[in-house]
Amino acid sequence: MLPGIGVFGNGSVVRVLVPILRDNGFKIEALWCRTLLDAQELARELNIPFHTSKIDDVLLRKDVDLIFVLCSPSLHAQISVKALGIGKHIVCDKPGGLNQEDALKMVRACQYYPSLISIINHSFRFLPAITHMKKAIQDNYIGSQITLIDIRIQSGRLYAENNSYDWRCDDLMGGGTLNLIGSHVVDLVTFLTGQTATKVHGIVRTFTKTTENIKGIRQISAPDFCCFQMELNGGTLVTATINSHTIGSVFQQEISISGNEGHLVVHGGDLFGRKEKQKEEVLFLDVEDMKTPISNTIIPKPYAKGLCKMVGALREAFLPVKEKAGWIKEPVQSAAGFEDGLYVQAVLGAIKQSSEMKQWTKVNIMTEQPDSNALLSAAVRRTAISAIN
Amino acid sequence: MLPGIGVFGNGSVVRVLVPILRDNGFKIEALWCRTLLDAQELARELNIPFHTSKIDDVLLRKDVDLIFVLCSPSLHAQISVKALGIGKHIVCDKPGGLNQEDALKMVRACQYYPSLISIINHSFRFLPAITHMKKAIQDNYIGSQITLIDIRIQSGRLYAENNSYDWRCDDLMGGGTLNLIGSHVVDLVTFLTGQTATKVHGIVRTFTKTTENIKGIRQISAPDFCCFQMELNGGTLVTATINSHTIGSVFQQEISISGNEGHLVVHGGDLFGRKEKQKEEVLFLDVEDMKTPISNTIIPKPYAKGLCKMVGALREAFLPVKEKAGWIKEPVQSAAGFEDGLYVQAVLGAIKQSSEMKQWTKVNIMTEQPDSNALLSAAVRRTAISAIN
Repeated sequence: MLPGIGVFGNGSVVRVLVPILRDNGFKIEALWCRTLLDAQELARELNIPFHTSKIDDVLLRKDVDLIFVLCSPSLHAQISVKALGIGKHIVCDKPGGLNQEDALKMVRACQYYPSLISIINHSFRFLPAITHMKKAIQDNYIGSQITLIDIRIQSGRLYAENNSYDWRCDDLMGGGTLNLIGSHVVDLVTFLTGQTATKVHGIVRTFTKTTENIKGIRQISAPDFCCFQMELNGGTLVTATINSHTIGSVFQQEISISGNEGHLVVHGGDLFGRKEKQKEEVLFLDVEDMKTPISNTIIPKPYAKGLCKMVGALREAFLPVKEKAGWIKEPVQSAAGFEDGLYVQAVLGAIKQSSEMKQWTKVNIMTEQPDSNALLSAAVRRTAISAIN
Repeated sequence: MLPGIGVFGNGSVVRVLVPILRDNGFKIEALWCRTLLDAQELARELNIPFHTSKIDDVLLRKDVDLIFVLCSPSLHAQISVKALGIGKHIVCDKPGGLNQEDALKMVRACQYYPSLISIINHSFRFLPAITHMKKAIQDNYIGSQITLIDIRIQSGRLYAENNSYDWRCDDLMGGGTLNLIGSHVVDLVTFLTGQTATKVHGIVRTFTKTTENIKGIRQISAPDFCCFQMELNGGTLVTATINSHTIGSVFQQEISISGNEGHLVVHGGDLFGRKEKQKEEVLFLDVEDMKTPISNTIIPKPYAKGLCKMVGALREAFLPVKEKAGWIKEPVQSAAGFEDGLYVQAVLGAIKQSSEMKQWTKVNIMTEQPDSNALLSAAVRRTAISAIN
């Protein structure tokens, strides 16, 4: 039985997601936006029966069993943890929270409720060219040793150009190329290779700080360019360049993986390969049209297509189970979980630190919340010791 | 009057250069190769009247006034300095010597003989798309501030795949992506922007260490991959990726320059541009055929085309002057000089050091030969001081 859906957020992703969900048989029961006005307008536009600006009003609804968290990253952890606590399944937008502290809270919550689905929206994993690439790597198409991964993504501006300032313009609020696209890259590398980054080096830059509409006191701090290199624990070198600075650029991606015996590359949605001494061959051409037609200008086609496939997988997970909100694991097992989200946040944090300190930085995954009262508790301890003496 | 030519070297560049020189009216008088057998065979193949394996036998010939040094980088400085000393014009292959010590010797020599032509073979500067790009930048097409330069070059293997081990397989002898292609990139950035690198970060790797023909005691040490970032003194960020590791890759280049008001990109030999709020436009299409037809497999077309144009410029420099080996400056003034070569060596050295030390490295241009007897002379000085006291 398909669960009723509650959606948090008002970005372009919501406009893309809602028709995809409906085409897969899901019913959208409730919408939350930051302001009541936004909620009202978007609910009318998308024909959603209930809207609100209060988080609990969505979470507590009995007809909502699957939550899509697509709002500002600063709210990801709060909403996800609360939703899991009252027994709702969660799909949270990448990167999942603002930082490792957030991601760790989410991991703790999902570990506490293993019977609930908790997924980070790294829909790229579901893109057919990527699943074919992963299979080819597993089948040793490029040999036993993956030497080099080179990923290049060009994109248009990552904030609404004609709108006012929002979280997407702000680095600390989770905007910019590194958080929004780099997170996909970091997740994808681990998904494809099974390896994780041990050390990273990065350059994160904001070249365009003002636009025609944003030129007041608030400037854009979200980076429009980043390039980073990662050393993986299996010896592979990764280099990635993500550019949303170049004027007028359209979405383009190239994911190239070299091994000791061959080479695989995804251009857009297609997969090409080449083995030593052989000609380049087409391994997969993505000719399938999406059920739900999506304008290329709102969200890049590969992301939309991945989203379609992920929603399809969710349908497969829920549909065979009669019980309300019951599910089977197999269709969604390749999705990114909250642990993957924590790892991605650790790498993003290390890349930012590397860019600031201008040095290679070790990736450290947080296992305990930092003691926010470190100074205070040290003082308390000292007092206690004095008291004893 | 066109000078007679002496050529040092036996690589594929010689096979490409000789017909280009002849088509421009130059006469090749003498050929030097490392072994007499190589010299004999190549001289017969290219129909060159004199061949030798002794350096002086070419340099001292009265009918030779312009020397092309296309042999192993370890001989660049020795041949160039000697040639200038006996009054011969020099075109030396990039990067010009093995390191800064070599490059500094060459600079000193060319400063001593300013009436002689001394050029580093950065033929890229003469590629029509590049000269158009430089002009567009000077005309403020992309605005007053150049923000980001992104250069990607893919190439096939940089050593002869069916031959035995030679200097191109050896890092210290001057082989590999960084020395052979990176040098072009570093020179090109300065040529286009007028800026120089202050700090660099790089990763230089040799992924493929053996081939079917090279798998004995000697392994390939020349890097087949490098990526590097440069901060320029005018505030521009440069990122470059040069890959000759990926199996079966053909030569591809993309040179992309973004500014605060627009964007320029060279794909292969063509130039495209885009100004803010306008559509992408074609600024230059390279439809002109080369006078000398060159197989694309020997040397990438953009390099060959640049070489054609450079030789054409040399013709223009010599032809109007009646006097033997006399020349005018204007046609060759955009060529890279030996000072440019010294700067490139300084940057290449800093990139190598950065890759070894895993940190950003300052570019230091050598102004004095390092004292190879530093310890000894310190001892001598101390003795002298003791003697005084």
